[in-house]
Amino acid sequence: MKKRVAIIGVTGAVGQEFVVALNNHPWFEVKQIAASERSAKKKFVDAIRDTNSGILKWHIRDPIPDYVKEMTVESVDDINPENLDLIFSSVESEAARDIESKFAKYVPVISTSAAYRYEADVPILIPGINDEHVALLDQQRKNRGWKGFVAPLPNCTTTGLVITMKPLLDKFGAQKIIMTSMQAMSGAGRSPGVSALDITDNIIPYIPKEEDKVRLETGKILGKLVDGKIDPAKMKVSCTCTRVPVIDGHTETVFVETASHTDPESVKSAMKEFSSKVSVAGLPSAPKEYLLVHEDPTRPQPRLDREINEGMTTVVGRVREDTVFDNGIKYVLFSHNEKMGSARGAVLLAEMLHTKGYV
Amino acid sequence: MKKRVAIIGVTGAVGQEFVVALNNHPWFEVKQIAASERSAKKKFVDAIRDTNSGILKWHIRDPIPDYVKEMTVESVDDINPENLDLIFSSVESEAARDIESKFAKYVPVISTSAAYRYEADVPILIPGINDEHVALLDQQRKNRGWKGFVAPLPNCTTTGLVITMKPLLDKFGAQKIIMTSMQAMSGAGRSPGVSALDITDNIIPYIPKEEDKVRLETGKILGKLVDGKIDPAKMKVSCTCTRVPVIDGHTETVFVETASHTDPESVKSAMKEFSSKVSVAGLPSAPKEYLLVHEDPTRPQPRLDREINEGMTTVVGRVREDTVFDNGIKYVLFSHNEKMGSARGAVLLAEMLHTKGYV
Amino acid sequence: MKKRVAIIGVTGAVGQEFVVALNNHPWFEVKQIAASERSAKKKFVDAIRDTNSGILKWHIRDPIPDYVKEMTVESVDDINPENLDLIFSSVESEAARDIESKFAKYVPVISTSAAYRYEADVPILIPGINDEHVALLDQQRKNRGWKGFVAPLPNCTTTGLVITMKPLLDKFGAQKIIMTSMQAMSGAGRSPGVSALDITDNIIPYIPKEEDKVRLETGKILGKLVDGKIDPAKMKVSCTCTRVPVIDGHTETVFVETASHTDPESVKSAMKEFSSKVSVAGLPSAPKEYLLVHEDPTRPQPRLDREINEGMTTVVGRVREDTVFDNGIKYVLFSHNEKMGSARGAVLLAEMLHTKGYV
Amino acid sequence: MKKRVAIIGVTGAVGQEFVVALNNHPWFEVKQIAASERSAKKKFVDAIRDTNSGILKWHIRDPIPDYVKEMTVESVDDINPENLDLIFSSVESEAARDIESKFAKYVPVISTSAAYRYEADVPILIPGINDEHVALLDQQRKNRGWKGFVAPLPNCTTTGLVITMKPLLDKFGAQKIIMTSMQAMSGAGRSPGVSALDITDNIIPYIPKEEDKVRLETGKILGKLVDGKIDPAKMKVSCTCTRVPVIDGHTETVFVETASHTDPESVKSAMKEFSSKVSVAGLPSAPKEYLLVHEDPTRPQPRLDREINEGMTTVVGRVREDTVFDNGIKYVLFSHNEKMGSARGAVLLAEMLHTKGYV
Repeated sequence: MKKRVAIIGVTGAVGQEFVVALNNHPWFEVKQIAASERSAKKKFVDAIRDTNSGILKWHIRDPIPDYVKEMTVESVDDINPENLDLIFSSVESEAARDIESKFAKYVPVISTSAAYRYEADVPILIPGINDEHVALLDQQRKNRGWKGFVAPLPNCTTTGLVITMKPLLDKFGAQKIIMTSMQAMSGAGRSPGVSALDITDNIIPYIPKEEDKVRLETGKILGKLVDGKIDPAKMKVSCTCTRVPVIDGHTETVFVETASHTDPESVKSAMKEFSSKVSVAGLPSAPKEYLLVHEDPTRPQPRLDREINEGMTTVVGRVREDTVFDNGIKYVLFSHNEKMGSARGAVLLAEMLHTKGYV
Repeated sequence: MKKRVAIIGVTGAVGQEFVVALNNHPWFEVKQIAASERSAKKKFVDAIRDTNSGILKWHIRDPIPDYVKEMTVESVDDINPENLDLIFSSVESEAARDIESKFAKYVPVISTSAAYRYEADVPILIPGINDEHVALLDQQRKNRGWKGFVAPLPNCTTTGLVITMKPLLDKFGAQKIIMTSMQAMSGAGRSPGVSALDITDNIIPYIPKEEDKVRLETGKILGKLVDGKIDPAKMKVSCTCTRVPVIDGHTETVFVETASHTDPESVKSAMKEFSSKVSVAGLPSAPKEYLLVHEDPTRPQPRLDREINEGMTTVVGRVREDTVFDNGIKYVLFSHNEKMGSARGAVLLAEMLHTKGYV
Repeated sequence: MKKRVAIIGVTGAVGQEFVVALNNHPWFEVKQIAASERSAKKKFVDAIRDTNSGILKWHIRDPIPDYVKEMTVESVDDINPENLDLIFSSVESEAARDIESKFAKYVPVISTSAAYRYEADVPILIPGINDEHVALLDQQRKNRGWKGFVAPLPNCTTTGLVITMKPLLDKFGAQKIIMTSMQAMSGAGRSPGVSALDITDNIIPYIPKEEDKVRLETGKILGKLVDGKIDPAKMKVSCTCTRVPVIDGHTETVFVETASHTDPESVKSAMKEFSSKVSVAGLPSAPKEYLLVHEDPTRPQPRLDREINEGMTTVVGRVREDTVFDNGIKYVLFSHNEKMGSARGAVLLAEMLHTKGYV
Repeated sequence: MKKRVAIIGVTGAVGQEFVVALNNHPWFEVKQIAASERSAKKKFVDAIRDTNSGILKWHIRDPIPDYVKEMTVESVDDINPENLDLIFSSVESEAARDIESKFAKYVPVISTSAAYRYEADVPILIPGINDEHVALLDQQRKNRGWKGFVAPLPNCTTTGLVITMKPLLDKFGAQKIIMTSMQAMSGAGRSPGVSALDITDNIIPYIPKEEDKVRLETGKILGKLVDGKIDPAKMKVSCTCTRVPVIDGHTETVFVETASHTDPESVKSAMKEFSSKVSVAGLPSAPKEYLLVHEDPTRPQPRLDREINEGMTTVVGRVREDTVFDNGIKYVLFSHNEKMGSARGAVLLAEMLHTKGYV
């Protein structure tokens, strides 16, 4: 018997990725899909067509799965969580807070929204990185009297940074991180998303709230769960987040000061070793390589590296010594914002929670 | 004493071009600007900033003129036409019909919208091409009991086609036109405009209603005004309109059957001669060359040819014999959709109407 | 026992597609690869790396197949055709003529170059379209005293046009074709290929020699083989070929005059019926749909339609009546220039020739 | 009497910018232009046309100035420096070293190449930043027995960094700089330049040698000339340089540790004050604003900011506190790589050297 799941916010960028990630899933079956009033009662294929231009707003390379084409999009209010085992939510609006708590009273909610990320009894989970924070969900249930819980993923820009930093933190300690992101247009959503007139032949050097999110989330995810509380990791994080004319996948340049001395070869070994032993290996959505390290100095490149393992692999290149920090290392990372950084990462999280008995 | 003008729809793509085209205009002075309720009572610079991304939606290469920066955007309802001599309207919504007629009762309205284009007593005017249709405005005033009138420009895709066909029609007659357009993203407006996710590395082979507009408007503009009615030109027109990843300027491939035999050299001569004698020469917004014919087979190119004479020149290249039609000629044209094809063309029209005493 | 094949011009755009198309092929095994002196004696992965920028010039979404990575690139002169059963050639230079004839003395050569396309005893073959022209290869062998032969594919811009016209020609006759192409950048090769400075935010309305190729090849492929000679199809063809900022896949707008009256529904039916009965169905490289007809007016779109059946399907949309021609039909087509239009199409041709005993 | 100048490497990206920058120059007159053998003896307009595609390789918005169109491109060997007062060189090849020294024996050479940048008696000059290093040219003349000298500009990526750092260094001291560049495609030259297939929808995270150049040049330019030697500035510099799909203009994110405590408002004031007092103010090529500081967090943007003062203004935005460094400041800068960062910057340098009597 597969778990019965619903996708909330199904017409948006992340919602559509959920649709694909859950196609023929061995453990989960999509029973209901929901979106805002505007889309409600339409068939999925009709709900995602822009009424002015006539363009189908489907930007994923895989075609629309058959199972969802004719499925009716419900209004969020018409979803009854008591008939479900799990809810994937990608509501981006201010409404996320109310919607997710309404459902969490009855059933686990895995969310890509920021609504609950910064609350004390809510872990921000990246499967394979901070699985031990899952225990905070028990605390959350108790605090709030919920049968379910809300388990949010981080911002898609945080994901790649934390995944690449975790092996360094474990092995060498981490004191300081300076990061510049070059983020894909798909990270800004799809309706309407970034205007072509704004971004063609251009860079927008500012993404509202993004830099604070990365800083806060990095500390929390890499922190320790002590006495029912997360003690954030101590490293200092500073970043500049930009939007560039790239369709999918975030590129980040990272400069790190580690606690103990290290060198590029040791860093690469640590990343590879971590990847080979990652906890989520073998789960249905887990990639063959969790972390991949290139020797080719021209990699990672979004157009090439977004294709690896269906966007579930975090890709690193140009690992070099940095000469500004005391124990300085610098590298470039690539993380697929719509796959590991969002819906597929959420499905991987659901799989991990399932194996632990939380779903 | 300059004429007192207002810009309606000032925050949109075309409205902004009006702002630039009227900066330091020798004859016209912008007294009021208006837009929808959402923008009303804001300063212009605040009204054009996107509230989510924080991005200033100003896509014109010239900076925002000082005269308009701090000007308050009025609600359309707050514009009193009796204090004005002329209104430029670029309202794109369904509301254009009511708004323009409300103003036209009192004052001339030059419009880039389609609301009145296809009515019998409304000429579609391209200055330099069908100036004799201006007389229909008298008819319109009489019919409707208006002190002003509505004088619409054609769709921006029609403009270049008609301008390049006019010399051929006059000299050789024109029976058939087959045209394919590759239209710039700015033609789809600015809020939100074309989504970068839809158009990057892509072509959208469909623009709703565009092909019918081109067909109808070409016949009407190139028709004759006889007994207070426009008798459309008889040539057959068929086209396919596409959207391509180009910021500004429409490119069109044209295949024509003329009535009498001709050849590429004669066609080029006819175009150049027409250009040298065009009626609007010398008006403040008229370009040095009305029509420009390249011998270089790699022209016209949007990135190079949009710069010529501030986008007011229609540019032709690759004039060759066509072997499918009986008297066949084919060529490629470029027309700047936001300049001659829209706001600046409207200002040129106002100048022409002014010299004729209509404004 | 698999047939032993070589790829000549392996480092170029088409050559790389051959590498992928022949990976794990059930009938063919790549035994040798060759390129110009500059690449000779290097490993494949080293030969395709740009020495200035350090960038690996591999632009295909599939990763480099393992079988070829370490294979040594030979100089063309070092290839001994007597150890081979078949040669795929994508030599683009003037040298193609000599190279291909040298090999064809001993072994069949399937070529994407234009060197022999226009000779009387050389058919231009599109598998599924003019299979009966294969018999001309016997003539060619006899004329030239070759054990092998040269069988060229058409220009990639011709392919989609001919594939979509064939069902119309068979069912309704075809008198006139007017076509405008919007061609992908990959069609211009890869070293160096189109410069980003030339094509970003731009259109180049000219591709040297392309329009003549399309005209000549369309007539020849759709012609009849009578008494050892190809009698070209009689329809008139006129086109304008442009380069647009799209990575892969050519889009073409087509306006057709058929001999007998028809209508859009009949045209779509004819295309679908042809597709369902196409001769090459079931061959290893044949797509599930040879021709696909969209009802969605916003299709075909390069970014979406290039993914269908690995680029082997010709995709049609916007089938409408045309009002300029007497029996006029217009539509938009998409054809993947690097797949069906080039290397994969060549492999499909090899498969067809194999089943007929020519390879 | 204007100074007689020659442009060496006139057909390349930088050479063409020299052509424009020297058009109607009040002090300099182009008497000769030269390029490699391949272009020699052609007219300029013919020499810059690509023979394969037929495309004119002119990517500057201004049209080709009349003065140069019909001028004959000489072979470098045919330039006689004794008839000249000044040479602008943008030779990019390995040949730069020999060519520049050959000319420098007789006449001042202002160069954009790297050939002599790192030699002890060669200053790297940015007009307005390290004018006092000009004195090292006397030393160079003496050392080498040259009548002229070689005065190179820095790498275009260094320029913006140094210009923005100079006011900080002067006022607050500077200990550490971490920088990430997002560099325009035009920085990679024009023949062939970056391939569209490499960079469309992509980022290349590596530019050979660029990072070392930035580090070395920053220290040298911001250093002090003491006893005929440049004592490099002591700050540590680390950077990651990337190529992005932007036509013109480099964007850089900068994280700085100053020696004494500061804050964003003080940094902005220091930059504005420096700009208002810059030494080169009033020279023919000097911009109205040398440094411009935006308050709008979405600036600088390449498409908007490259237009300011014809690309001669370095533009700064997003000045904020950085929390990783002890006295941390971070900002984003934009510098036009083909204008201030290259040919126009070289002409400004020539003007400065002229006022000091060196030219």
